[in-house]
Amino acid sequence: SRPPCSSTDNTDSCSTGESSRESSRCSTPGPDADRADRLREKMRRRIESGDPWFSLEFFPPRTSSGAVNLISRFDRMGFGGPLFIDITWHPAGDPGSDKETSSMMIASTAVNYCGLESILHLTCCNQTKENITAHLSKAKRLGLKNIMALRGDPLGDSWEEEEGGFSYATDLVKHIRCEFDDYFDICVAGYPTGHPEADGYHADLKHLKEKVDAGADFVITQLFFRAETFLSFVKDCRAIGITCPILPGVFPIQGYQSLRQLVKLSKLEVPKEIMEVIEPIKDNDAAIRNYGIQQAVEMCKVLLDSGVVPGLHFFTLNREVATIQVLRQLGLWIEDPRRPLPWAISAHPKRKVEDVRPIFWASRPKSYIYRTQDWDEFPNGRWGNSSSPAFGELNDYYLFYLKSKCSKDALLQMWGEELTSEESVFEVFTNYITAQANLSGHKVMCLPWNDDPLAPETNLLKDELEKVNRRGILTINSQPNINGKPSSDPIVGWGPPGGYVFQKAYLEFFTSSENVTALLKVLRKYEPRVNYHIVNVQGKNLTNAHDMQPNAVTWGIFPGREIIQPTVVDPVSFMYWKDEAFALWIEQWAKLYEEESPSRMIIQYIHDNYYLVNLVDNDFPLDNCLWQVIDDMFDLLDAPPEPLQ
Amino acid sequence: SRPPCSSTDNTDSCSTGESSRESSRCSTPGPDADRADRLREKMRRRIESGDPWFSLEFFPPRTSSGAVNLISRFDRMGFGGPLFIDITWHPAGDPGSDKETSSMMIASTAVNYCGLESILHLTCCNQTKENITAHLSKAKRLGLKNIMALRGDPLGDSWEEEEGGFSYATDLVKHIRCEFDDYFDICVAGYPTGHPEADGYHADLKHLKEKVDAGADFVITQLFFRAETFLSFVKDCRAIGITCPILPGVFPIQGYQSLRQLVKLSKLEVPKEIMEVIEPIKDNDAAIRNYGIQQAVEMCKVLLDSGVVPGLHFFTLNREVATIQVLRQLGLWIEDPRRPLPWAISAHPKRKVEDVRPIFWASRPKSYIYRTQDWDEFPNGRWGNSSSPAFGELNDYYLFYLKSKCSKDALLQMWGEELTSEESVFEVFTNYITAQANLSGHKVMCLPWNDDPLAPETNLLKDELEKVNRRGILTINSQPNINGKPSSDPIVGWGPPGGYVFQKAYLEFFTSSENVTALLKVLRKYEPRVNYHIVNVQGKNLTNAHDMQPNAVTWGIFPGREIIQPTVVDPVSFMYWKDEAFALWIEQWAKLYEEESPSRMIIQYIHDNYYLVNLVDNDFPLDNCLWQVIDDMFDLLDAPPEPLQ
Repeated sequence: SRPPCSSTDNTDSCSTGESSRESSRCSTPGPDADRADRLREKMRRRIESGDPWFSLEFFPPRTSSGAVNLISRFDRMGFGGPLFIDITWHPAGDPGSDKETSSMMIASTAVNYCGLESILHLTCCNQTKENITAHLSKAKRLGLKNIMALRGDPLGDSWEEEEGGFSYATDLVKHIRCEFDDYFDICVAGYPTGHPEADGYHADLKHLKEKVDAGADFVITQLFFRAETFLSFVKDCRAIGITCPILPGVFPIQGYQSLRQLVKLSKLEVPKEIMEVIEPIKDNDAAIRNYGIQQAVEMCKVLLDSGVVPGLHFFTLNREVATIQVLRQLGLWIEDPRRPLPWAISAHPKRKVEDVRPIFWASRPKSYIYRTQDWDEFPNGRWGNSSSPAFGELNDYYLFYLKSKCSKDALLQMWGEELTSEESVFEVFTNYITAQANLSGHKVMCLPWNDDPLAPETNLLKDELEKVNRRGILTINSQPNINGKPSSDPIVGWGPPGGYVFQKAYLEFFTSSENVTALLKVLRKYEPRVNYHIVNVQGKNLTNAHDMQPNAVTWGIFPGREIIQPTVVDPVSFMYWKDEAFALWIEQWAKLYEEESPSRMIIQYIHDNYYLVNLVDNDFPLDNCLWQVIDDMFDLLDAPPEPLQ
Repeated sequence: SRPPCSSTDNTDSCSTGESSRESSRCSTPGPDADRADRLREKMRRRIESGDPWFSLEFFPPRTSSGAVNLISRFDRMGFGGPLFIDITWHPAGDPGSDKETSSMMIASTAVNYCGLESILHLTCCNQTKENITAHLSKAKRLGLKNIMALRGDPLGDSWEEEEGGFSYATDLVKHIRCEFDDYFDICVAGYPTGHPEADGYHADLKHLKEKVDAGADFVITQLFFRAETFLSFVKDCRAIGITCPILPGVFPIQGYQSLRQLVKLSKLEVPKEIMEVIEPIKDNDAAIRNYGIQQAVEMCKVLLDSGVVPGLHFFTLNREVATIQVLRQLGLWIEDPRRPLPWAISAHPKRKVEDVRPIFWASRPKSYIYRTQDWDEFPNGRWGNSSSPAFGELNDYYLFYLKSKCSKDALLQMWGEELTSEESVFEVFTNYITAQANLSGHKVMCLPWNDDPLAPETNLLKDELEKVNRRGILTINSQPNINGKPSSDPIVGWGPPGGYVFQKAYLEFFTSSENVTALLKVLRKYEPRVNYHIVNVQGKNLTNAHDMQPNAVTWGIFPGREIIQPTVVDPVSFMYWKDEAFALWIEQWAKLYEEESPSRMIIQYIHDNYYLVNLVDNDFPLDNCLWQVIDDMFDLLDAPPEPLQ
């Protein structure tokens, strides 16, 4: 029941717009069918199976460090399993720009780097059609698939229609459908107590009906304070023929000031029974928040029990605690998230078939996504294909979503105010592995190659890793071998239930050229069980592996599916990773120190002289032999020199 | 050192010819690197690794039943591991035609259906350039990649040059290179005692040098009787700058008449020491053959020991015993061939990346190749893709390479001169499984769906299969579950050494609709462990599987490679297989009986009313539960009806 572009529309703008459907390229359904669906399809399936969801609303940050924090929050809150998040449009903040803090870039980051299904808000007042089309084209180009179409508030006090612009959200919905056909899923706002500027509640319902008839897929409501307000609103919507999903906007009260501000903006009245509780405790933030959580939980229970609410939409105010608490109490927060793949997926539509990556970027998935953002396809066939499109350059180490969350001071405390020898670098690596405080009392929480503390899986190898790092095997990536653990395994499991996951043992480290010489001798004994790639910063490359053939090191077998092999050691991309891995020594570590300082020269020396080594033990059903390889190498180095004959 | 098309050549023919290189399409190197290489590359690698090979020469058969037999011989002799076979050009036998017996079609069958690297002979005398180009284009279209370029013998006594044709093999070599660039590998003939029509041995050596300089890749010699003949010939070739491989043509004497005939044709003289042995035993075929084997073995040993012979080429006379005996005694015959994939591969160049097939055609690989011969690509991505090119129709059940090797009488003896009930059909299936004689004393060696006796792997399931076939579960395909056996396992192993192979248990059978009703009830208990597809001849389709997603049922993990999953249960192709599987009841079985005979009506009834069922047990590490599923089905059928309440 989607209306065609009306004949009174400007046909010019219709024909020049991008009227494109999803490509008809067929492919095997991915490991996660849900991932390939558009938002309205996901909603349809959840409604059919009676499986309520939640979603989270954020606003764009004001500062670039605020952006870094918000994106970490996306990662953390993403684990809880929101069906989608949405980013408000902030007209005063240059919302369509490339600034790190713009609505557009925040939404793009959420989709591309955090793998979150996201809705970008878009307001139409005070904007030209051309402007709006440009925003939508850019959103599409960035991989955004969902728009919340809003009128927005006029900038001044009085409403002035922009020439050639739109007066109502309905016009914006029509415009999106006309210019972009069915590409976007469109959400519109509902006002359970009527829009403040509409001529009454029923006139406003009629406007909502028009917006839906114009092509909106679902409705998210403005906040409200009583469940019955929303429930009677839904009843009235259904009565006039609005049949799409209507999602309640839930606002857990988080503080006195934020409540007052929001109420002022939305021109809502806070019910007396709530004000009576809040006023006496208005200076006690914790008490108000606890009340807000309790109040929200109770209201949400009524909503869910009503049978007409398929999902709950939370206005988070960019905060975590209250919303997560409410969701936990409702049992909607996923405590033990199942990973669809062993790495963090991206929600960009062109990446929805992506099911394999090189293991090298395991701790830097955002960097991998960034460097491959210009690729057109993400098939298996790319691996081992030297003619595949190149990886993007990583010149801009200050790219905000790749930035360390730590300050320079914090990094110096962790990695050493002053380095005196290569051994002091070994110590930093060892302290990272053991998570123990260093001599100056600071825990090493990250390394240039690892933004976060040791993964639970890597922790399985902790003792061996500690031992070898002490001796200058500076590990940056590793995984244990796994011979068929259930896909539900809390540490190494991933993928749909009922399957089995497998891994080949993997170890990647920097080490000195002396060690490499001994290692190469030792590795001869481990042919063909162990594959290696050994490379220095100049690109000198030693390997016993096929120069094109990738080695699958993580795979899973699932009921009724093809094999999934999400992680490979790929000889071609290893050369690109090598550049990045070596550069991080300089960009993230050496540059902490003054030029020509001894500390900086030590890091520079390692950068210039060490090799990056990766080892795969192909015999996954047997005990991991890579530790034995390293032991043999040290034995060889420790052996007395052969006597002269 | 390949000469460009000479400027005196007819440039017209150059520009109109197909000057095409292999497509530059890149892909992951397949499971068997060797498979993707062209013949001269394979030779180069075998020479480098000092690994001598053998090859086999055949001539085209005269009759269509001769063709069926020859193709079975290709399959059997292919197991021994020839590097290539070659098919002689039989000018009197319409050699380039589509006849089942033509040189062209025999070579094409060897490549496409038997997976053998093959060389097609081609003679140029008495042929126009256009004719030759047409033959070459056809050969290329059929997937042939290697040509033995010969002058051939004039048809009459005197040599008459065809207008616009060629006088010498050198011209043919030039023509191939000119018209088809580097597409074909070209072989030319060498004459260790000089060509009978050449002006002496040295003039002939010069001709050979010209042929090689014109673009030939290697030389196969005419037969000879003394190793030193060949060795001094090679020495002379090297002396004048012929550097390519020179392969000795070995002729094990197999009988007095065939020796005399060959000697007459080749105008060679049989050495006195050989004639002296043979003449006295000329009426004792066995004695002559034994002598021939011994003589060939001794000569081959000298050749191999010389260090200048990289491989031996055998003139088989289309017989197996003598050549295989010689090869066994030389240790060149592979007794326990390693399978690169679990199914018989095709050597067509466009299929060299093929690494996955539906399991349904496991016993009918030639039919699968035939029905997919028009496909352009063979990627993984085809599976689960409803827009994939359709399977070819299988209207011509008499297609000679799909023909049963048995006569109608033999089939009636095995499958019953007269059928009296469905149970008598059950008995045929059971007798096939048990390999025991039926009531009339005949063993059931094949079924319409299985040309050969039970595979060793299926034999593992023999007891269970017998039990269920007796009760009307008419099995046509099955495999046991395998949880990581070495790739070298003699029964279920495949692929390169050092790997592990896995399987999900699979069972496919026809059964009555009553059984299916009970089965469907039982299968509910086995969700989601067991996936099923159940379909009748009308296409009524019952399944609990994704309608597009294939289920990998055979896969292998190998050192330094991606996962290989060569066999899938694919829902899309199952519908095509269903048509073929049901049609075989009628085409191969029912039609043995008179129309409207009770026997025919029984088969027709089964065809019209039974269902084709396939079951996969996804939980490969556990014991196969499919037998329990069948047991449960029979228990349900045997249970007393529920009492009325």
